Amino acid sequence: MSLLAIGTLAFDDIETPYGKADMIVGGSCTYITYAASYFASEVQIVSVIGEDFPETVMNDLKSKGADLEGVELKRGEKSFFWAGRYHDDMMGRDTLDTQLNVLADFDPKLPPAYRNTDYVMLGNLTPSVQMQVIEQMESKPKFLALDTMNFWMDVAMDELKAVLKKIDILIINDEEARQLSGELSLLKAAAKITDMGPKSLIIKKGEHGALLFQGDKTFFAPALLLPKVVDPTGAGDTFAGGFMGYLAATDDISFENLKRAIIHGSALASFVVEDFGTRKLERLTKSDIDGRVAQFSELVRVNF
Amino acid sequence: MSLLAIGTLAFDDIETPYGKADMIVGGSCTYITYAASYFASEVQIVSVIGEDFPETVMNDLKSKGADLEGVELKRGEKSFFWAGRYHDDMMGRDTLDTQLNVLADFDPKLPPAYRNTDYVMLGNLTPSVQMQVIEQMESKPKFLALDTMNFWMDVAMDELKAVLKKIDILIINDEEARQLSGELSLLKAAAKITDMGPKSLIIKKGEHGALLFQGDKTFFAPALLLPKVVDPTGAGDTFAGGFMGYLAATDDISFENLKRAIIHGSALASFVVEDFGTRKLERLTKSDIDGRVAQFSELVRVNF
Repeated sequence: MSLLAIGTLAFDDIETPYGKADMIVGGSCTYITYAASYFASEVQIVSVIGEDFPETVMNDLKSKGADLEGVELKRGEKSFFWAGRYHDDMMGRDTLDTQLNVLADFDPKLPPAYRNTDYVMLGNLTPSVQMQVIEQMESKPKFLALDTMNFWMDVAMDELKAVLKKIDILIINDEEARQLSGELSLLKAAAKITDMGPKSLIIKKGEHGALLFQGDKTFFAPALLLPKVVDPTGAGDTFAGGFMGYLAATDDISFENLKRAIIHGSALASFVVEDFGTRKLERLTKSDIDGRVAQFSELVRVNF
Repeated sequence: MSLLAIGTLAFDDIETPYGKADMIVGGSCTYITYAASYFASEVQIVSVIGEDFPETVMNDLKSKGADLEGVELKRGEKSFFWAGRYHDDMMGRDTLDTQLNVLADFDPKLPPAYRNTDYVMLGNLTPSVQMQVIEQMESKPKFLALDTMNFWMDVAMDELKAVLKKIDILIINDEEARQLSGELSLLKAAAKITDMGPKSLIIKKGEHGALLFQGDKTFFAPALLLPKVVDPTGAGDTFAGGFMGYLAATDDISFENLKRAIIHGSALASFVVEDFGTRKLERLTKSDIDGRVAQFSELVRVNF
């Protein structure tokens, strides 16, 4: 089935201890789309770009199965731009520059063909923009996922809480889960957050794996051990894109299938960090992905 | 089979966000023995105590299967004492006081009955004291495990490296593994450390679980999510004691059995942190432990 994804198509300047990449194509929707395209039959993109966004990338996304009808091109304007530098431990990072450009007055318009899509991934954006997408859906999606960040908890908590009531699953990291819930224990945080609306919750812990909560059920997916992390940018969006793409492809939102989707999302995220930007993510084979999925199972396998 | 354990029998003052416990019985050998006693037929203790160490505790340890012949009592002296305060996040802690007392000139003497034991757990102590124990063994143990800490890497690295050449498995945390190897990636750290001597390595990551490395094989054991961690003191020693006790009981050092031993050690560690000191660890049932072991398997179970 199709996946509808909203997020950014952007440029990034990235500096890590392994090097520097300037003006490479990034943005949440880019990572989500590349990742989801390995599973979903189609990825309907809602985004906004300036005249500077490369047509070659748009064509590549289209060749991977992206529907670009929902991408607005603003003539004479520039695409969203982010510059950041990662710390030596690859965990912390400093934002060096953020230029909203076309994103400043982003007013998403869903083409009619998008309005009955069952699987929806709302990438990290202003909660009010995420809400606009929800309100334009004609039928309630079967599974609506949301990404957000601590910045929106600081400046738009009420809007965020309104969005939380509309979604099926929230995908955030451990620090964000603690801030949103005010709880140190992730078990208590999960209980409070799922009381805010979403029936399911994924808490990402970076190199320490990811947790899935639904009612009293919990699942933990480890992270693979990688010899070298070159660039963590986009790992979270790649995870979310792979997760939602897998669900759309299998059209099964049982807890057991959410687990399988998390492993597939984690497998894709384990590739994207091995090179700058989307370089590695763009050209994976089914056998690459299946190999990593098998590694996840093997890593925790124990027989009693 | 029997387990030989060397470490401290001591007093602790512990302060956590949940309260304060003064002059409670602690020390690495206490936790190792209680934990191992659930599996091993006997725990031969090598340690040193002052006249202040409670006879009730010695009797309780004996009733659990401890052989106390190797515990030296120094008349007119005081037992080792440590005081610490945990940070609000329960991860960091400050040492408020350390009084070596009887430990200052600890000269371990192995009773003849201990010198051919197959399973040996060397708790965290001066590397030269750990070496003295190794040198007193008449036959090479089947499986020799070592715990150490960053302090010894700072002040006694050469002695520590000599000990590493004699052991089968090293059990340390992620920070210590990074310091010992000089590598940020735990995969690279593991390769360097296993080159230093031990064929196998466990890297503990606290609330993020534990990793086992042996050659090109890796296993990851998650940590259970606990609603409340009251006191993390002794979690590492409890893990090590449970791990080695399980191996001694099953007398099987295959990689597959090391995995099962890690899950059993993790299960015991998940109990000990739920109350101050050894309170919870002293009185578990087989069904308590089996229940937690099942939770570990369930937490990561996924079928493709």
